[in-house]
Amino acid sequence: MEANRVYNFNPGPATQPLEVLKEAQAEFLNFKGTGESIIEISHRAKEFEAVLDQAKADILSLMGLGDDYDVLFLQGGASTQFAMIPMNFARDGKVGSYVVSGSFAEKAYKEAEILGVGHIAATSKDDDFRHVPTQDEIKIADNAAYLHLCYNNTIYGTEYHYIPETNGVPLVADMSSDMLSRPLDFSKFTFIYAGAQKNLGPAGVVVVVAKKSFIDVKHKDIPTMLRYGIHLEKNSLYNTPPAFCIYMVGKTVAWIKAQGGLSAMAERNAKKAKILYDAIDNSNGFYKGHAAKDSRSFMNVTFRLPSEELEKKFVDEAKAKSLCGVKGHRSVGGMRASIYNAMSIEGVERLADFMESFRKANA
Amino acid sequence: MEANRVYNFNPGPATQPLEVLKEAQAEFLNFKGTGESIIEISHRAKEFEAVLDQAKADILSLMGLGDDYDVLFLQGGASTQFAMIPMNFARDGKVGSYVVSGSFAEKAYKEAEILGVGHIAATSKDDDFRHVPTQDEIKIADNAAYLHLCYNNTIYGTEYHYIPETNGVPLVADMSSDMLSRPLDFSKFTFIYAGAQKNLGPAGVVVVVAKKSFIDVKHKDIPTMLRYGIHLEKNSLYNTPPAFCIYMVGKTVAWIKAQGGLSAMAERNAKKAKILYDAIDNSNGFYKGHAAKDSRSFMNVTFRLPSEELEKKFVDEAKAKSLCGVKGHRSVGGMRASIYNAMSIEGVERLADFMESFRKANA
Repeated sequence: MEANRVYNFNPGPATQPLEVLKEAQAEFLNFKGTGESIIEISHRAKEFEAVLDQAKADILSLMGLGDDYDVLFLQGGASTQFAMIPMNFARDGKVGSYVVSGSFAEKAYKEAEILGVGHIAATSKDDDFRHVPTQDEIKIADNAAYLHLCYNNTIYGTEYHYIPETNGVPLVADMSSDMLSRPLDFSKFTFIYAGAQKNLGPAGVVVVVAKKSFIDVKHKDIPTMLRYGIHLEKNSLYNTPPAFCIYMVGKTVAWIKAQGGLSAMAERNAKKAKILYDAIDNSNGFYKGHAAKDSRSFMNVTFRLPSEELEKKFVDEAKAKSLCGVKGHRSVGGMRASIYNAMSIEGVERLADFMESFRKANA
Repeated sequence: MEANRVYNFNPGPATQPLEVLKEAQAEFLNFKGTGESIIEISHRAKEFEAVLDQAKADILSLMGLGDDYDVLFLQGGASTQFAMIPMNFARDGKVGSYVVSGSFAEKAYKEAEILGVGHIAATSKDDDFRHVPTQDEIKIADNAAYLHLCYNNTIYGTEYHYIPETNGVPLVADMSSDMLSRPLDFSKFTFIYAGAQKNLGPAGVVVVVAKKSFIDVKHKDIPTMLRYGIHLEKNSLYNTPPAFCIYMVGKTVAWIKAQGGLSAMAERNAKKAKILYDAIDNSNGFYKGHAAKDSRSFMNVTFRLPSEELEKKFVDEAKAKSLCGVKGHRSVGGMRASIYNAMSIEGVERLADFMESFRKANA
């Protein structure tokens, strides 16, 4: 760990690769000899288009997808995608079918409901979102335009360990908190999206990876900026894009490639998650995990302590040891350690060591 | 001019204050002793909320507005505002009344048309958008929810030199390209918005300054992210905001304050504009300004040369002298020098000197 830097376990915005931050810092006044900062360069300049196109190519390559897919860089966060998806696709008597596996999955469903096209295919709300619904629990609507999943549930610390079979219904997934963290057969998905601020870079850009044939729609009754087909046609340059965020996503995906790609990420992420889940499971019940074991997230590790008083103490003492951002979301309480791609094994080991010493001192 | 930096006359993204860039660069790995980059800090952290609240306070103070106004930081560019404005306000039999004074003004009108609520109050299209419509030309619809203006027309190089009287109809203005460039009686406007990437910072955030009572609307048939009232209630933190962009806007408005505020900006901007308009007017017709004299913009100076061949030569030779981004928009042709707040007088003098020497060599 660099002097003065902390271990940042925040759920997003989240810790970023230090190498990426340093590169961006070094060239901040003069991007690649242009004599301009990356934030000053015209989005129509060839230097910027090269950045955007390289980021797209790296993302598709990391995901093992071909040119039947394309990458869009949009704004408004996953929250805006929640609305755009049903507006663009759940039309002409079709509905959006939703697996409600957590807060953001439910928010996505609610935006379809505003448009009168929401359908719940499965929910684990009764279980306090401790597990992601199984294949057997999912009942896709007959008139479904798509099945929507939230692949990792940041707040509850759950994640899919399988890809649901949809029998031909397009599979749409919010991967905001586990995008590019492990290899999957991404070709089973028709539409994947992610807010960048966890695994991909700064807040302010949403990465959409989708089948071109699916998103090539420009319904004339939808505001222009909300039509996927416009952004597809214009290579995400219909209007001025969030250039700095795209540039940082580009650097981050290049870093993932340099680390060995998604397999290497997955190996490291599994190792990090195991360290923390072992600390929970070997605590004689002092730490209690929120997620059911077969739904445990590789990205967000959620757990409670015996009392809220101890939880507060844990947060404070952790922070004093430069282990920051471990407080859980109010809807679950307790702790949440977010351990995205950029979190080091060292940081996770430090946290596990602290968990053990805290337990010994307070059990 | 710093070694290796160029004079950047691009229309946006555009040149930014070098002091601001250097400050951001210096603290990029560790923001104010947090041990985190500004792009890694939680948007719920007190350090980030302080950045956001200070930026808001500085903007209202620069504009001389009281607490009946509020500032929102939104995403999707002015282009998304084009749609949100009629969605939120032109309802219940009311229309949006638009002054069409250029390309972006027309785009704003077209988004209202998509919703079936567009009305043209005036247009200068027949005049190739050489002037902004006068008070006498503007006929506001009887059932207008608002009158919409584009206060500076980036592509055509025109700008309002008066504030239209609306007789009580809320005045809405896209100030993307002249926001905070000069003092105005902003209290005559109900709703002002601007993409940041000209005078305010990086692309990726839109600044909305509006009367609270006007934007406190949450129509249940509009997607949540498109309801102004949600962003007002949540202090622009309903979802993860474009944190880096807001931070840079904060630094930029602090820089404007330190320079002496809007009066100082206006004085400097008027001086810069005069240097270039004098170069046009004193060129014996070699340079021909596009804008009518009484509509000339302080921000974007547009002019043609005697031939397209000379125009191409001008762009190339200017670039060789580190005078970049002077090529005009294809719909006007010729040249456009964008001279926002951050462009130095020295840069403008260099461009004027080059114009004179180019004219002598090629007239």
